[in-house]
Amino acid sequence: MHHNPTPESNRVLVLGGDGFCGWPSVLHLSAAGYDVAIVDNLARRQIDVELECESLTPIRPLGQRLDTWARLSGRVIPHHRFDLARHYQRLVDLLLEWRPATVVHFAEQRSAPYSMKSAYEKRYTMENNLGATNNLLTALVETGLDAHVVHLGTMGVYGYGSAGMKIPEGYLKVAVETESGEHAENEILYPTHPGSIYHLTKSQDQLSFYFFNKNDGVRVTDLHQGIVWGTQTVETARDERLINRFDYDGDFGTVLNRFLMQAAINHPLSVHGTGGQTRAFIHIQDMVRCIELAVATPPAHGDRVRICNQMTETHRVRDLAQLISVETGVEIAYLDNPRVEAVENNLHAANDFLLSLGLEPITLSGGLRREVTEIADTYAHRCDKSKIMTQSLWRQHPIRGTRQHTTEPAKHKNKPRTPPTNSALRI
Amino acid sequence: MHHNPTPESNRVLVLGGDGFCGWPSVLHLSAAGYDVAIVDNLARRQIDVELECESLTPIRPLGQRLDTWARLSGRVIPHHRFDLARHYQRLVDLLLEWRPATVVHFAEQRSAPYSMKSAYEKRYTMENNLGATNNLLTALVETGLDAHVVHLGTMGVYGYGSAGMKIPEGYLKVAVETESGEHAENEILYPTHPGSIYHLTKSQDQLSFYFFNKNDGVRVTDLHQGIVWGTQTVETARDERLINRFDYDGDFGTVLNRFLMQAAINHPLSVHGTGGQTRAFIHIQDMVRCIELAVATPPAHGDRVRICNQMTETHRVRDLAQLISVETGVEIAYLDNPRVEAVENNLHAANDFLLSLGLEPITLSGGLRREVTEIADTYAHRCDKSKIMTQSLWRQHPIRGTRQHTTEPAKHKNKPRTPPTNSALRI
Repeated sequence: MHHNPTPESNRVLVLGGDGFCGWPSVLHLSAAGYDVAIVDNLARRQIDVELECESLTPIRPLGQRLDTWARLSGRVIPHHRFDLARHYQRLVDLLLEWRPATVVHFAEQRSAPYSMKSAYEKRYTMENNLGATNNLLTALVETGLDAHVVHLGTMGVYGYGSAGMKIPEGYLKVAVETESGEHAENEILYPTHPGSIYHLTKSQDQLSFYFFNKNDGVRVTDLHQGIVWGTQTVETARDERLINRFDYDGDFGTVLNRFLMQAAINHPLSVHGTGGQTRAFIHIQDMVRCIELAVATPPAHGDRVRICNQMTETHRVRDLAQLISVETGVEIAYLDNPRVEAVENNLHAANDFLLSLGLEPITLSGGLRREVTEIADTYAHRCDKSKIMTQSLWRQHPIRGTRQHTTEPAKHKNKPRTPPTNSALRI
Repeated sequence: MHHNPTPESNRVLVLGGDGFCGWPSVLHLSAAGYDVAIVDNLARRQIDVELECESLTPIRPLGQRLDTWARLSGRVIPHHRFDLARHYQRLVDLLLEWRPATVVHFAEQRSAPYSMKSAYEKRYTMENNLGATNNLLTALVETGLDAHVVHLGTMGVYGYGSAGMKIPEGYLKVAVETESGEHAENEILYPTHPGSIYHLTKSQDQLSFYFFNKNDGVRVTDLHQGIVWGTQTVETARDERLINRFDYDGDFGTVLNRFLMQAAINHPLSVHGTGGQTRAFIHIQDMVRCIELAVATPPAHGDRVRICNQMTETHRVRDLAQLISVETGVEIAYLDNPRVEAVENNLHAANDFLLSLGLEPITLSGGLRREVTEIADTYAHRCDKSKIMTQSLWRQHPIRGTRQHTTEPAKHKNKPRTPPTNSALRI
């Protein structure tokens, strides 16, 4: 057993620091004056190989990225390549040796469609995501390192508001009956309704954070993020060798970036179902600011897990498509929805905490045009059109028994159909 | 992708069929006329080796157990030895080949103190328990086998009523505010307050069941079991070579069996804390009847996860100790409590479902004397007294920061101290 090491207040360890959110966060924290180190097993790049698809933007190997940053900024960022779910002792040794005050945890497979492709991807997502989180928490307790964990969660754990609830920031007051038959009020973790294996793992992460916080006093900020759009931040834009990922494929591309890509190559904007699903969004520049705010303001010792919704706007998917269709003249194609989810939903989420810390959001209406021209148009020649549509079916078999006729999965994958009659705008 | 195999209605696959609950369940189901097969990697016996402690009762190797049963009953029970968390493809092949209509899932590390010993046991418990459950559910979806999953959960996921709630069977109605500001009622998974890594994994299992039921229609019965006491069932008592485990050690021995063992060797009955913790109990004979009832009455297709509390009585720990002390003349020793939990709690739990299926419980007052004489007295000579006390500390370091002075862990492990002043009986 090791004795409590004292954390170095300026050090931040970023798990998954080579990914879409991880890389710009690393540079933003480094530019802000933190000493940053990365753990990344390069799993996201390996999935590119597996899916035979690449980032639209020409991302460089991590070594080149880090060399470029060192030359530009004078700051050296070490990279430790190992698998957090499998190489527990390597993590323990690194924590003891480097003693970060904050661990930012992005090291999870982040695509819901990928997590539903087949048993292989389901099992990988569960083993990797739960393994990384549980190993991190166990290692913090074993080493005694009093580091603040900043974790990227998702607002999607709540099932995108399908239960008709207003989404608060993490907790819910409930009226309960006590053993003596009286009524009392209790505050519980906000109940989750995961809609994919990916969301399931994020829901299970919440319970791990809850337990390690309660039992061992581990300080955790869980950022329940909306859908990130945009590509570049101030730092990644400083040199093309620092450019961030832009995924446009059906598995890893987020909805808005996929529309931008489709518009750039004059491909119909693919809306699944009625497009009535409401989603929460945040620009990648705001995302890195939120990470910095969370790092700079750790919860106090003894505080429960701090859960914040990390989003700045909500939109219906079809309204986004119409916005882009109007800007670019590209038409919309309504397709069957492979997901098992409510056809239409509203979403009301609180984001008071981040706004109170001083976040000034970048809005869609302000940033879209630049994103289309600077990224999608510039790199449109790199697009593999065959990768645009999702290949994941949410169910591999018709659901068992009586539910079959009511929630039957799509019979004709991606077959175009008529648009919904109710297409009222609700931006 | 395989096509939907049709389950054979009489076949039950028991995962973890060599363990304390698994083995008597296997024999009970076999005696009741089911075709039973076992998957077990013998992990529990390997932990005996690791802890340098054995069952008080002289359990035979699984091969001898199965030979004996085949000779007595004429029923052959195959044993498949592999690790469910690691050998996924082996499970898929077995499901496709044997097509059980029910899978009874006992294949989880079941000791809360063991799960808290050190990083090794924490990680083993998380990887094994989550891996086994997630692989089973994924394999059922991949194979398309429409089998009913009967899982052994624990009432302990609710934190033993420490939140002051009355414990229903799995779900909780909550008043919620909708996005339009109105109030509505919603039913959610009953919120968990896991008190150990073991309980954490069972809480996380619940979310996996919830998701695979909702997305894929997998039928699940989750039996939230109280503390099992007793050793033998009608079937395990038929031949000494069929005898069941009896754990008396500080990690795997359950509270009542440990008292019985201590009484048999005239060792003071070890009560942790005030003994004011209320627990739910069930005799092992009732446990196997409950399993059979659950197997015989699967939920309908389309039903949500069926969650039942599997217990028949609740008692305060100190009252149990006094009951046994009065019967045997052995004194009680009050020790510090290694667990991080409420000092005193009540527990009110519903068990309407199992009673409605016709369970007639064996009560403590009726069965205790027989258990003391037939098991504890008979095998007292096999007891290693050094293994009686728990070696697990719930925290490896003082909790971080401000909570330290209020929930400080025990400073003097197992140091005897004065009994609590409030010792009113509440059986």
